[in-house]
Amino acid sequence: MHQPPQQPAAAAALLGHPGLRPRLRAWLEEDLGRGDRTAAALSGRRGRAHWLAKQDGVFCGGVLLAPLFQQLDPTLAIHCLVADGMAVRSGERLVILEGSATALLAGERTSLNLAMRLSGIATTTRALVAELEGSGIALADTRKTTPGLRDLEKYAVRCGGGINHRMGLDDAAMLKENHLAWAGGLEQAMVAIRANGPWTSAVVVEAETAAEALAAARAGADGVLLDEFSVEALQTLVPRLRALRPGIRVELSGIQPDRLRAYAASGVDLISTSAPITRGPWLDLSMRFT
Amino acid sequence: MHQPPQQPAAAAALLGHPGLRPRLRAWLEEDLGRGDRTAAALSGRRGRAHWLAKQDGVFCGGVLLAPLFQQLDPTLAIHCLVADGMAVRSGERLVILEGSATALLAGERTSLNLAMRLSGIATTTRALVAELEGSGIALADTRKTTPGLRDLEKYAVRCGGGINHRMGLDDAAMLKENHLAWAGGLEQAMVAIRANGPWTSAVVVEAETAAEALAAARAGADGVLLDEFSVEALQTLVPRLRALRPGIRVELSGIQPDRLRAYAASGVDLISTSAPITRGPWLDLSMRFT
Amino acid sequence: MHQPPQQPAAAAALLGHPGLRPRLRAWLEEDLGRGDRTAAALSGRRGRAHWLAKQDGVFCGGVLLAPLFQQLDPTLAIHCLVADGMAVRSGERLVILEGSATALLAGERTSLNLAMRLSGIATTTRALVAELEGSGIALADTRKTTPGLRDLEKYAVRCGGGINHRMGLDDAAMLKENHLAWAGGLEQAMVAIRANGPWTSAVVVEAETAAEALAAARAGADGVLLDEFSVEALQTLVPRLRALRPGIRVELSGIQPDRLRAYAASGVDLISTSAPITRGPWLDLSMRFT
Amino acid sequence: MHQPPQQPAAAAALLGHPGLRPRLRAWLEEDLGRGDRTAAALSGRRGRAHWLAKQDGVFCGGVLLAPLFQQLDPTLAIHCLVADGMAVRSGERLVILEGSATALLAGERTSLNLAMRLSGIATTTRALVAELEGSGIALADTRKTTPGLRDLEKYAVRCGGGINHRMGLDDAAMLKENHLAWAGGLEQAMVAIRANGPWTSAVVVEAETAAEALAAARAGADGVLLDEFSVEALQTLVPRLRALRPGIRVELSGIQPDRLRAYAASGVDLISTSAPITRGPWLDLSMRFT
Amino acid sequence: MHQPPQQPAAAAALLGHPGLRPRLRAWLEEDLGRGDRTAAALSGRRGRAHWLAKQDGVFCGGVLLAPLFQQLDPTLAIHCLVADGMAVRSGERLVILEGSATALLAGERTSLNLAMRLSGIATTTRALVAELEGSGIALADTRKTTPGLRDLEKYAVRCGGGINHRMGLDDAAMLKENHLAWAGGLEQAMVAIRANGPWTSAVVVEAETAAEALAAARAGADGVLLDEFSVEALQTLVPRLRALRPGIRVELSGIQPDRLRAYAASGVDLISTSAPITRGPWLDLSMRFT
Amino acid sequence: MHQPPQQPAAAAALLGHPGLRPRLRAWLEEDLGRGDRTAAALSGRRGRAHWLAKQDGVFCGGVLLAPLFQQLDPTLAIHCLVADGMAVRSGERLVILEGSATALLAGERTSLNLAMRLSGIATTTRALVAELEGSGIALADTRKTTPGLRDLEKYAVRCGGGINHRMGLDDAAMLKENHLAWAGGLEQAMVAIRANGPWTSAVVVEAETAAEALAAARAGADGVLLDEFSVEALQTLVPRLRALRPGIRVELSGIQPDRLRAYAASGVDLISTSAPITRGPWLDLSMRFT
Repeated sequence: MHQPPQQPAAAAALLGHPGLRPRLRAWLEEDLGRGDRTAAALSGRRGRAHWLAKQDGVFCGGVLLAPLFQQLDPTLAIHCLVADGMAVRSGERLVILEGSATALLAGERTSLNLAMRLSGIATTTRALVAELEGSGIALADTRKTTPGLRDLEKYAVRCGGGINHRMGLDDAAMLKENHLAWAGGLEQAMVAIRANGPWTSAVVVEAETAAEALAAARAGADGVLLDEFSVEALQTLVPRLRALRPGIRVELSGIQPDRLRAYAASGVDLISTSAPITRGPWLDLSMRFT
Repeated sequence: MHQPPQQPAAAAALLGHPGLRPRLRAWLEEDLGRGDRTAAALSGRRGRAHWLAKQDGVFCGGVLLAPLFQQLDPTLAIHCLVADGMAVRSGERLVILEGSATALLAGERTSLNLAMRLSGIATTTRALVAELEGSGIALADTRKTTPGLRDLEKYAVRCGGGINHRMGLDDAAMLKENHLAWAGGLEQAMVAIRANGPWTSAVVVEAETAAEALAAARAGADGVLLDEFSVEALQTLVPRLRALRPGIRVELSGIQPDRLRAYAASGVDLISTSAPITRGPWLDLSMRFT
Repeated sequence: MHQPPQQPAAAAALLGHPGLRPRLRAWLEEDLGRGDRTAAALSGRRGRAHWLAKQDGVFCGGVLLAPLFQQLDPTLAIHCLVADGMAVRSGERLVILEGSATALLAGERTSLNLAMRLSGIATTTRALVAELEGSGIALADTRKTTPGLRDLEKYAVRCGGGINHRMGLDDAAMLKENHLAWAGGLEQAMVAIRANGPWTSAVVVEAETAAEALAAARAGADGVLLDEFSVEALQTLVPRLRALRPGIRVELSGIQPDRLRAYAASGVDLISTSAPITRGPWLDLSMRFT
Repeated sequence: MHQPPQQPAAAAALLGHPGLRPRLRAWLEEDLGRGDRTAAALSGRRGRAHWLAKQDGVFCGGVLLAPLFQQLDPTLAIHCLVADGMAVRSGERLVILEGSATALLAGERTSLNLAMRLSGIATTTRALVAELEGSGIALADTRKTTPGLRDLEKYAVRCGGGINHRMGLDDAAMLKENHLAWAGGLEQAMVAIRANGPWTSAVVVEAETAAEALAAARAGADGVLLDEFSVEALQTLVPRLRALRPGIRVELSGIQPDRLRAYAASGVDLISTSAPITRGPWLDLSMRFT
Repeated sequence: MHQPPQQPAAAAALLGHPGLRPRLRAWLEEDLGRGDRTAAALSGRRGRAHWLAKQDGVFCGGVLLAPLFQQLDPTLAIHCLVADGMAVRSGERLVILEGSATALLAGERTSLNLAMRLSGIATTTRALVAELEGSGIALADTRKTTPGLRDLEKYAVRCGGGINHRMGLDDAAMLKENHLAWAGGLEQAMVAIRANGPWTSAVVVEAETAAEALAAARAGADGVLLDEFSVEALQTLVPRLRALRPGIRVELSGIQPDRLRAYAASGVDLISTSAPITRGPWLDLSMRFT
Repeated sequence: MHQPPQQPAAAAALLGHPGLRPRLRAWLEEDLGRGDRTAAALSGRRGRAHWLAKQDGVFCGGVLLAPLFQQLDPTLAIHCLVADGMAVRSGERLVILEGSATALLAGERTSLNLAMRLSGIATTTRALVAELEGSGIALADTRKTTPGLRDLEKYAVRCGGGINHRMGLDDAAMLKENHLAWAGGLEQAMVAIRANGPWTSAVVVEAETAAEALAAARAGADGVLLDEFSVEALQTLVPRLRALRPGIRVELSGIQPDRLRAYAASGVDLISTSAPITRGPWLDLSMRFT
């Protein structure tokens, strides 16, 4: 039909994972239950449909359509007109699908639900990233994600221009106040973690005061997470942390989206926020049969 | 400790389903990945924590805590102070937990993610239901739900005071324009569906004009779905539908949340909306270790 | 080879369900266990076989052969000569198969077991349906089905000319005596169920006396199930029920197969019976290698 | 309450298998679907029920009740009054159950379906075994079993007094005509199989003539399967087989149930038949709430 | 490219088993975890690689490459230059692969780990088999295998020239001292086992003295397992066992690999040893990109 | 009975993972197949057994016994006399078990196979770690592990005194020659990886020459992997790498076990080797019934 758009590099790991298709199948089965009650009326028909944006935003989720619909009809053809991560306008055609009528209807709702959710996240992320433009500060997500969709929601954050924080509890050790209490202090905790995890795993320490942050840097943390510090406090603290431990990553959290721009001069490496995931509305998309 | 609050009747089917625990386990594993990197520092410790509302809203998700945490530590004790569906105030304690430190940390994020999402839905639903108060019109959800969470999100809608539309494609036949085109007309579609589904399954027909709605009623539909009709049009149409087919359910969709109150006098049975799910922000909750 | 026969519309939902193939695979593995001990003697051979009816009856199960055998050999060719639901004669060829010898042998027993079971059900159903011919009363199945095969056995009932009762506990609420006792009465039970299920879900009430049936109709039941009423009693009761609640479905159960014809004049909508499933012998089929 | 009856030794392997409970769970989920629509009306109630035989027969399936119901309610108490394999009379109480109302109803149909099916098989088996009483010939089952229930149906055959033939394609090599054709002859087939399977695995050869049977014995088969031989032919052939190869097992198949007694003097070791499974009606059982 | 070598007959059952691919997928996912971190740098590239032996030995595992890699890239081409069971020299090319770069890297480690492990077993087996050359005694494996890999490790033993002992606890009954104690003696144990298992299942009795072995033969055992007997003792005992029960299989265990040759004249049927699996080093193989 | 020994901190993440039990169950089922043929002879018996070391070594695997055996018999009692990671002597008692006879036999082989394999790895690891004693260099494992057992084998390495390298392809990005070729160079590869992975993920670059290693350090690698460098070369290179990029981890691979001691003065941080896993024989353990 036409040259399909180049999907983002971030899609490669997602699509190359053998666990993706079984998960999509479980979601299809959630909607199908015991089977589409209308299927008997459609037996043998083939159809054609397209997807339409009903709002402006950033599209995300197109790369999932082939592995989803082709489990229902291996001959169903999917043409993405827009790559994940591209801005779209209300009324714009996004995808063209052609295949068996029962498959189109069986996959319609699940695929739209995924793409509306992911496009909503990408859209909100892009708006927040714009607040930090030129600051050199990255916008990162958190582990506040919908159960079962973490990798997809984090992919949507990347499509929106954000970066990913750790993917889960196995990806890095994040030490909070209660860890230190249980482990008997920062040093004991770090020794136990370094000895029992892979050497490649980073250790990040959450700090509520400058003194705690400096202690973490001295103890060899790979990163410090500063919660709700003022810009002024950061302008003093960050250089001291970098002097103590070159290469340390300084992360800030707890900042409301509308105050992001105020932190552009804070000097931190990244600001993490769950807003695109916990506050981003779905982007309205629909499927039209032709 | 104290008398636990009475959980809603809607929780019974959810908790009695043997498929709930395996799904919670999969979500725990999504966050754990290869395992919590901090576990080695906590080995053998026990702890105590409580959940706190950080915003006003309607709480939902407490019934999931026992089946979730007890897969990590069968001896972990959970005391809900608030039942699902109850209004909570910012700062209010919701739950007390006591058990192994590794289990508390391993389940913290997944359980909060679930409850924050569900409480957000319940909170938004309750606000919309209030718009229709006294009208006799029920507020219903749709199939626009997060893949993998449909039963939970629909439970949250009930906790917020809404009712549930069909649970999936197997729950009733919903005939849209394209069904009629493929099946060769409304009558052919209804014959095929009635002959091939369970007799208990309802048939609902989507109508874009009054004429289509009346044809559906004549053809024996159990319900009609009217999309974006005006209040005036409904006030004429609904009585005619009821006269033609006593007991028919009249559903309205496509109404923006801020126009709900205007439709209180429309005479329909239910208004369906995806707003609590596609536009409801998560309710902010947190877990504090003590 | 030839034009394959048109499979029944009822097959569409079955074959379009992504859960079918994993289930067929589990059944293949049940027979294979650690693997066919004869496979080493057949390595690389290809073969040709056909299926033969060894009794007169109604064939059912042909639509499962492709999703079953193609999991063992994607190149295995299957030609159904007879559609599901068609009457066959002893000695008639039903299917021709061609593919790897190990796949033909690995799938032989499981596929025949399924088709013999389903054809037996379809055959018995057709005989019972004939008893009601011209009466306008439908013959329906029940939830007495072999664990793991419900959708297939209910498909066989449809292939035999019967209709399906609810597919499971989620498909409609069936209120029996003990429900009413536990819920505190019929009204309380119906309120709880209507409030907590999808609005599309029907409520059927089992009645042992005419008074109970009339009370159910008054309470708004979508159907009543009358257990072992006499024809005379039904001829009085059914019109009263329809007068009270137009559109109510009247179902009769507990009738022995040999008394079905006597109930042709009872005026009910459907008679439900488990006989095709609990008393129907398998239809004898065999596979011949050529 | 009372001393539970001694379950048969055959139950030990079944109940000790960690794969039993997940299978029972899948069957419960098949009936539950999205959940029992009546659950909301029963929330929190506890109940008591018993099982009743509605026909004379041999009971089977009681050992499954604990692993089935306790997945729905771990505190549900089950008291079997009758062991699997015992003869029961119409009207006899079989089991007493006590636990949550939602669990009793959620497990009712699935447990009865299993026990009715298995008791039907045990009942038919016992009748056929009686035909061979005193003959020294065992009655064996075949691989014609319901997909997904093989181990249970074979357990029911044992409860009825029969013995089990091989459990699947991995349990012994059964060489039929087409195997020999594909492998290039009996000797080649046996060499390939002996070399590639475990040494403990038996080889059985199906023979349609006496000459084929004798060739199999000479080639070292552990058993021969004689299909539809006359009693007279067997009286000549069996001693020759035993002389050629002491310890060889001689099996007969293809005998109609009503001719079994005629074969009591045939001298074979076992007669295999699928009749209890393919022609045995379910035994009528019911559950009563008290 | 060229004529692929003939894979061993032993591979047929392995490759024809529908459970193989899901297991390979789980192993791929074990290495991939949340996905290859380098995938984003390789998006869209295709590559070519070959496998090289880095030691002399017997190759095994080539038949797994297609079902493994084609789950990552269905178009990936695999050319085995060497069949499983063939001797290879250090530096020899074994396999050529061509396909997507992400798939080649995602499957590299898992496929090599399997083949190195299996080739190590085949290599050690062949060396031990050579010790018994000309003796007529087969070398058999045991149930000491790596959890999850039993069928593959036993396949490797066959590729090395050994035979397989039973595949698991279901494949034959092996009676040890404690069985006899619990069952109340040899006869009681054999009666219970013969009555409750398939008739095709062998019974093997472990004997620590000649008297025990002779008792087992008298009781009808299909095999006796003699643990650590001397050659002289065997030369007396084995003929007596065969005289008592023609066709009995005499197995010897507990022999150190370096004493195998000394037992060549012992007259037993098979010597079982776990050495190829518990003491065999992996064969060094590597994958080179070109 | 007695105070159980303190298990290593490394066991906490393993045992706290909800995925452990299902995996152990699959391994039990692998050995059980269709069920233990001897179970019928043991029905109802209880027994007592202990584990014995038959060689000197380092024990590992005791922590798995409870989650394994308690799936077969929840009341089975396990008393570890020795903690994982402790040195044991031939003849030493390791564990005492008490429970149902069928459970003890059903779990015997699988549990021993696991512990013999893991103890073999721990034993070999400890010997290699001793070679580097006092050098400050850690001994690390690799991704050469048995498919399905990676986390357990890496746990055994820790029990032997080694450290873990990355757990899989998701744990850190390891860039080899072919990555650089496909990505268009080191810088392009690092940009793509840093942009698309979690920020906490390390990047390690494999270097075959000093120039490549220095380039990697300059490009910001978190670690360099030096393959088969001489001690002298390392003594020059390592200080230059540390000067260029403080905190960089320098890893050496390709060193034969018997040359480890020679590298004690090389100045690297860790030496990685697959020897404990690819060349370590299983430690001989046995279970005795009493």
